[in-house]
Amino acid sequence: MNYRMILNLLGTILLTEGLLMLIPTSVALYYGESVTPFLITIAIIAVISLPLAIFKPKNRQIYAKEGFITVAAGWIFMSVFGALPFVFSGAIPNFIDALFETVSGFTTTGASILSEIESLPRGVLLWRSFTHWIGGMGVLVFVLAILPSAGGQTIHLMRAEVPGPTKGKLVPKMKQTAIILYGIYIALTVIETIVLLLCGLPLYDSVVNSFSTAGTGGFSVLNNSIAGYNNPAVEWVIAIFMLLFGINFNIYFFILIGRVKDAFRNEELRAYLIICTLSITAIAINTSHMFDKLGDCIRTSFFQVTSVISTSGFATVDFNEWPVFSKTILVILMVVGACAGSTTGGLKISRVLILLKSIIREIRQMLHPRSVNVVRLDDEVVPDETVHAANGYFAIYAALIIISTLVVSFDGYSMETNLVAAISTINNVGPLLGDVGPMGNFSGYSAFSKIAFSLNMLIGRLEIMPIMILFSPMTWKKR
Amino acid sequence: MNYRMILNLLGTILLTEGLLMLIPTSVALYYGESVTPFLITIAIIAVISLPLAIFKPKNRQIYAKEGFITVAAGWIFMSVFGALPFVFSGAIPNFIDALFETVSGFTTTGASILSEIESLPRGVLLWRSFTHWIGGMGVLVFVLAILPSAGGQTIHLMRAEVPGPTKGKLVPKMKQTAIILYGIYIALTVIETIVLLLCGLPLYDSVVNSFSTAGTGGFSVLNNSIAGYNNPAVEWVIAIFMLLFGINFNIYFFILIGRVKDAFRNEELRAYLIICTLSITAIAINTSHMFDKLGDCIRTSFFQVTSVISTSGFATVDFNEWPVFSKTILVILMVVGACAGSTTGGLKISRVLILLKSIIREIRQMLHPRSVNVVRLDDEVVPDETVHAANGYFAIYAALIIISTLVVSFDGYSMETNLVAAISTINNVGPLLGDVGPMGNFSGYSAFSKIAFSLNMLIGRLEIMPIMILFSPMTWKKR
Repeated sequence: MNYRMILNLLGTILLTEGLLMLIPTSVALYYGESVTPFLITIAIIAVISLPLAIFKPKNRQIYAKEGFITVAAGWIFMSVFGALPFVFSGAIPNFIDALFETVSGFTTTGASILSEIESLPRGVLLWRSFTHWIGGMGVLVFVLAILPSAGGQTIHLMRAEVPGPTKGKLVPKMKQTAIILYGIYIALTVIETIVLLLCGLPLYDSVVNSFSTAGTGGFSVLNNSIAGYNNPAVEWVIAIFMLLFGINFNIYFFILIGRVKDAFRNEELRAYLIICTLSITAIAINTSHMFDKLGDCIRTSFFQVTSVISTSGFATVDFNEWPVFSKTILVILMVVGACAGSTTGGLKISRVLILLKSIIREIRQMLHPRSVNVVRLDDEVVPDETVHAANGYFAIYAALIIISTLVVSFDGYSMETNLVAAISTINNVGPLLGDVGPMGNFSGYSAFSKIAFSLNMLIGRLEIMPIMILFSPMTWKKR
Repeated sequence: MNYRMILNLLGTILLTEGLLMLIPTSVALYYGESVTPFLITIAIIAVISLPLAIFKPKNRQIYAKEGFITVAAGWIFMSVFGALPFVFSGAIPNFIDALFETVSGFTTTGASILSEIESLPRGVLLWRSFTHWIGGMGVLVFVLAILPSAGGQTIHLMRAEVPGPTKGKLVPKMKQTAIILYGIYIALTVIETIVLLLCGLPLYDSVVNSFSTAGTGGFSVLNNSIAGYNNPAVEWVIAIFMLLFGINFNIYFFILIGRVKDAFRNEELRAYLIICTLSITAIAINTSHMFDKLGDCIRTSFFQVTSVISTSGFATVDFNEWPVFSKTILVILMVVGACAGSTTGGLKISRVLILLKSIIREIRQMLHPRSVNVVRLDDEVVPDETVHAANGYFAIYAALIIISTLVVSFDGYSMETNLVAAISTINNVGPLLGDVGPMGNFSGYSAFSKIAFSLNMLIGRLEIMPIMILFSPMTWKKR
């Protein structure tokens, strides 16, 4: 194990976090709020991370194992230090609560322990939504994009952080890939901010909501989430951008370099658009009796579907009061999630496609035991390894949901609420149904349960393996 | 496709059902009840099945495909004709309701649409519980046991009907294996009947409850299930026999031929006993405040755990009112189920063990990409094929639960109740939580939903593939 390289990378990650914290600091300064909470945090981060980041180990070679450990530990430390401004500012005095909120931010979950947010300082609220933006594309991808070639096998870092069943580089060089991804990400965020401004939102609200949309997180600046603006144009814009941020960023790259046909030949994208269209239609029909105008009905259905499938968790209505059929569709969409290589959570559509196709293959194999059957995606054969990994992923995923439902069962909530909270955190959805629904929050859970949910969120965001490997005794056993 | 052989086997299955129906007919006669409902049914069955069963096709060769189709169609027809006595006797006048009850019986689910059962004729109630007994070990296994060597590849029939991730023969000859299995099954049922008699139950109740315990079904003759006897000894006996019927019947065979050590070396058995012990202890501690006497607490915990893990669904308390932790454990046990090769439902412990071990293997593989890792069970390497089949099984299983939760979402029940009902039917548990809990029933669902749940029960009992293959267009496509 190359401990020095791991420490060096962890130092770089934390230093990056400290530098990024200058943005909310400036905002706090601009609004005349106290900047002390941020400055103390940045100082602490600097003291710890500078020596680690500056000292470059000679042997920069890392393997898959180091990649997983770095990413898992990096995200945990980022969350621990990212929680400090909440504590120091008094916005969330309890550290465990602040940690929960920060993990929820970085993992783009959007589950909150706060019920009153409008009174919080603007710098702190911006940091809260900015964690969504940082965590959405991944801080390591960012590090890879800004650092002079990190050397070693940086593909292992990217593999551990970017979601989806298959991982590839857009261009041969890792650094270039990271720059392209962040370029697209920044461009889309800026466009959304401008459009929201044009819809009449103040600059601050436009920026903060764009951060949350881009990361498909769901933290807002109003107690009533997006419903609080009471502005149909804003709802449409955010809904459409949630849809866009649910798409694999490789697709945008293909479009940018003129391979538009290739982009739309992508099976996952087509499945995503079909699922959205069908769900929006079904829910609009199912809820039509609740609206006076067709436009309101379609907009609300569109918003809820894109919010849920992208695992953002923005809300414009309390869909707890919707018909059971519509609620069930929404829960299914939460579990499925959107495209791999996007900032969304959930299982990812390509993984679900692989699972469904492997079921069909299984039936075919039973019918004709001697025939050779393969799973195809985008007209290419999916390697057996990937199919089995998707199956294995699903098994661990289900096991984790069951275990965490059991672990949090002492806090007086119903089993249904616990189950829904477990699904919500592992899928990085955030607000869901029942007591932790769009208009509820997690503050009633015990500190122990909040830590369990925080682990869930990290496990979900990093797609299970990094966290499992970090905490597995096998990893630390000498052989 | 060897249609003639399939029809011949279907005829044999139905004829066997008709003959078995003579038992409730005799009971009805003994109690002076009307035997007409049974006689009409037997007549109808005879007219349809005799020509099919008597005409022996020359080509008796069948393959996996025919095996699956025969088993799936056989179980559906058995249920359709098995429902007739309920309709003709007026016990359940609606055919769809009667079909639901019969499918629930044969699949050993025990979910009911009846709320008042004590007033029903004794012959009909015995038939209701007898369907558990017939379905528990499987009617095709019975056919194989009683028929002169059926010829052809009868292993395909057994494979499709006997639950578990791996299927083997106890002895080289299929017929002998079937005879041994039914021998053990009958012996255990008779022993339970005798012990219940000794506990003071009337003969009728002893026999009927033994049928239901043996099939791990859960139909009782009292409105309050086993709680109605108010007899701790009876509760202990039924609890212990539920535990015993959750064990792989191969184990009893090993014990019978003196290989006791081999029996207890079985990893699934050890896991089963450990899971039961831990769950009973945890629930007893968690519910201790609800009981005055330690004995009552342990007995109730023991009964509920064995009832649920064996997917019987007998009840002595309404555990809806238990602490959430205990309820969550019970739901997890329902999903896990007991041992493969027993009469229970659920995923089966060996399948869960394979899934968990494949997760550990996955982690090990990530850590050391170049090492070769295998999954072991009973100190033997589990073939990759079996591991992937277990993973695939789990994926289909979860997909089916989700789809059926959506399909039944128009009936006015909460999403939680629909989900629990879907899990309960696919796992062949029967009474569960919420509105379909130990003291509730399925009568409020629409006919459409009842058919969906009936399909769920069949899919669960036959472990998915036979029903999927029967209804798959691929099966019927010429190639």
